[in-house]
Amino acid sequence: MNAEEHDRRRFLKRGAALAGLAAGAIRYSSGQTRASEQGAAPASQGPSPGGAERILPYGARSRFEDSARLDAGGVFTPLQDLTGIITPAPLHFVVTHMAPTPDIDPRQHRLMIHGMVDRPLIFTLDELKRLPSVSRVHFLQCAGSSYLGLDQRKKAKTVQETHGKTSCSEWTGVLLSLLLKEAGLQKGGSWLLVEGGETKRHTISIPLAKAMDDALVAYGQNGEAVRPEQGYPLRLLAPGFEGVRNVKWLRRIKVVDRPYMSKWESTIYTNVRPDGKARWFQFELEPNSVITFPSGGQRLPGRGFYEVTGLAWSGGGAIRRVEVSTNGGRSWKEAQIQEPVYRMAHTRFRFSWNWNGEEAVLQSRCTDEWGAVQPTLGALEKLWGVNRDYWLSTTNRIQHFNGIQPWKVAGDGSVHNVIWES
Amino acid sequence: MNAEEHDRRRFLKRGAALAGLAAGAIRYSSGQTRASEQGAAPASQGPSPGGAERILPYGARSRFEDSARLDAGGVFTPLQDLTGIITPAPLHFVVTHMAPTPDIDPRQHRLMIHGMVDRPLIFTLDELKRLPSVSRVHFLQCAGSSYLGLDQRKKAKTVQETHGKTSCSEWTGVLLSLLLKEAGLQKGGSWLLVEGGETKRHTISIPLAKAMDDALVAYGQNGEAVRPEQGYPLRLLAPGFEGVRNVKWLRRIKVVDRPYMSKWESTIYTNVRPDGKARWFQFELEPNSVITFPSGGQRLPGRGFYEVTGLAWSGGGAIRRVEVSTNGGRSWKEAQIQEPVYRMAHTRFRFSWNWNGEEAVLQSRCTDEWGAVQPTLGALEKLWGVNRDYWLSTTNRIQHFNGIQPWKVAGDGSVHNVIWES
Repeated sequence: MNAEEHDRRRFLKRGAALAGLAAGAIRYSSGQTRASEQGAAPASQGPSPGGAERILPYGARSRFEDSARLDAGGVFTPLQDLTGIITPAPLHFVVTHMAPTPDIDPRQHRLMIHGMVDRPLIFTLDELKRLPSVSRVHFLQCAGSSYLGLDQRKKAKTVQETHGKTSCSEWTGVLLSLLLKEAGLQKGGSWLLVEGGETKRHTISIPLAKAMDDALVAYGQNGEAVRPEQGYPLRLLAPGFEGVRNVKWLRRIKVVDRPYMSKWESTIYTNVRPDGKARWFQFELEPNSVITFPSGGQRLPGRGFYEVTGLAWSGGGAIRRVEVSTNGGRSWKEAQIQEPVYRMAHTRFRFSWNWNGEEAVLQSRCTDEWGAVQPTLGALEKLWGVNRDYWLSTTNRIQHFNGIQPWKVAGDGSVHNVIWES
Repeated sequence: MNAEEHDRRRFLKRGAALAGLAAGAIRYSSGQTRASEQGAAPASQGPSPGGAERILPYGARSRFEDSARLDAGGVFTPLQDLTGIITPAPLHFVVTHMAPTPDIDPRQHRLMIHGMVDRPLIFTLDELKRLPSVSRVHFLQCAGSSYLGLDQRKKAKTVQETHGKTSCSEWTGVLLSLLLKEAGLQKGGSWLLVEGGETKRHTISIPLAKAMDDALVAYGQNGEAVRPEQGYPLRLLAPGFEGVRNVKWLRRIKVVDRPYMSKWESTIYTNVRPDGKARWFQFELEPNSVITFPSGGQRLPGRGFYEVTGLAWSGGGAIRRVEVSTNGGRSWKEAQIQEPVYRMAHTRFRFSWNWNGEEAVLQSRCTDEWGAVQPTLGALEKLWGVNRDYWLSTTNRIQHFNGIQPWKVAGDGSVHNVIWES
């Protein structure tokens, strides 16, 4: 019996052998109906005249589905609509500083590895695909994910706005360590300068140690080719590192002996504090989690049973524990974690909750394999010497925000981002 | 160090500490080039004028990608194009006996549970989504998957034609056992009669034991809503059971005391032997595997190193072992298995191979958690008392075919389905 089953059985016991669910432990929304004893099937379920007559070579979703990314200073994933841990490729978040998205012919694309190596090499995509490959489930998150300080997202209302710059995919490709060994690393090489194929050539530094550990040169995303917005035909995956270092449209890797202080690591992706000092070279994203249901902008149809669910992830490795509070953080209970848990990947958690119809504040906090615990917003404000008013008044951005996100369920069932109500 | 890493390291050793790769152990296709020492980036990689100016709310794949399903007596997944274990939803195989695909408004859809239960119930989709849920990675396969006897697929050439009626997704939904307990099972109930929402109401029997074990009522597929061709908004998942029992557009489940011998289990989905007898109620799909690269219709550009890769799966549980032969089955070597391995799910295997340029026959065979081993075609022919000529001459279909699939690599690098060459 795995943890998931264990938790489910606990639920069943709580639900008085499940018969209790119908009797009250679970209350359905107003539309609930008992079936007639005659066994008549419910009406209006048949195929409509609009039913597809033929099956497309590359299928489409239902015309009733309208889940969409939000384009507002970056393109945000609708986390509130996701199930499981895989983010559908069409809904993956996008942050591209140098639009437009390159339109690369994969037959023309090359990856060059040079610098402090014995054998500089250029690979075609076909050549890369002949090499030993791996598939790994990993999240990607923009370091700028936060409801604080990003211009358009000030006073963010929904989980898409607060946390929608994180997504998770099954990536397939070649370990970068294999390519670097193939090129032959020279003594003294300690960093990589990695370049993307946009017009303006996004360039950033990666420590060689990370490259030799678990970095991937990925050509596959969720079973098919990497999407154009994600770097088609080739991207770097530096698992757990801030999104900006996972270079898209990857074309060049130069082995060097120092970091190169590119624009994207020395100015924009730094944490500027109120005293003017900035924190540089913060690679790994901190343990983070958020409840996606119920979340801001949603409405519960009435009191009764709900499964609270959300996602947790950490740049430091695997999520070991997620706790949920339904009383604003006064007490916490263990949430159920969906197994298997991948390292540096979205981890789905679930928590059974009976809402009594009174105002409640829901929040989650996670702990990763290093024992690092997601902090409260108050703790972060203290750490950084700032408060919410500061972020509302400045154009500075905050990077690597991972504070606990509280959602208030009001008496009428509406759900709100409580941070901007206090 | 997991098995995947272990195997990779073995590869590196074989490759003479990788320096050997460039020198000869790996030979690249004719396009291989050494980078110049000047560090000049290769040309023609920049974004073309066709680069996307804006990012769609629901993204699209690259215009250079043309991987497509094949519509020929069912719609076949292009297994040769997949990476990892997830089948992209737009490329999931489809077998629909009663077209057209229903166009169901999820707000109008209901699931009724009745028959031998204490409390017949009707659920809306919103009600189901409030209940405790699980996500599980499972394959679905049509029992009629085979290169034998299906009319249009006789003498199938590609892996899409031979095995393309299997796909694998992350499914999210409610355990059917929870819904049945909620309804209150009455004594004597031992089977379910399950009905779909097509015009002609596909109906089939499921043993209650399976329903109480691991069957899912699924509304999520790879992070978003189940696709219309897969049963939107609701389908049954009976993990490891032949596809036809995984009822799509699920609308009704009746608890009964016997199987109902529906058309789909008493005629069409049975194995009719040459003596006229048929095998009924074969639920679980047998252990199966196939090499997807190199596979029929592909061409190797030249001798040298290749990563052979493919998929293995079993209705009986987890894949424990995959072996690959490169000499027509005379000897076998252990393939590397991608972890984690899910039960009743596609399992990716990889195998490092140096092709010496001579004719070679590649094939894979798998073993599942019960120790069941995938049989040769010869063993199956003996078991069934038939041969290939029989299948070519009859309109009978074969169900649950899981024979080992050999691919011949000819001296010119072209790859062929050797079964139809002997």
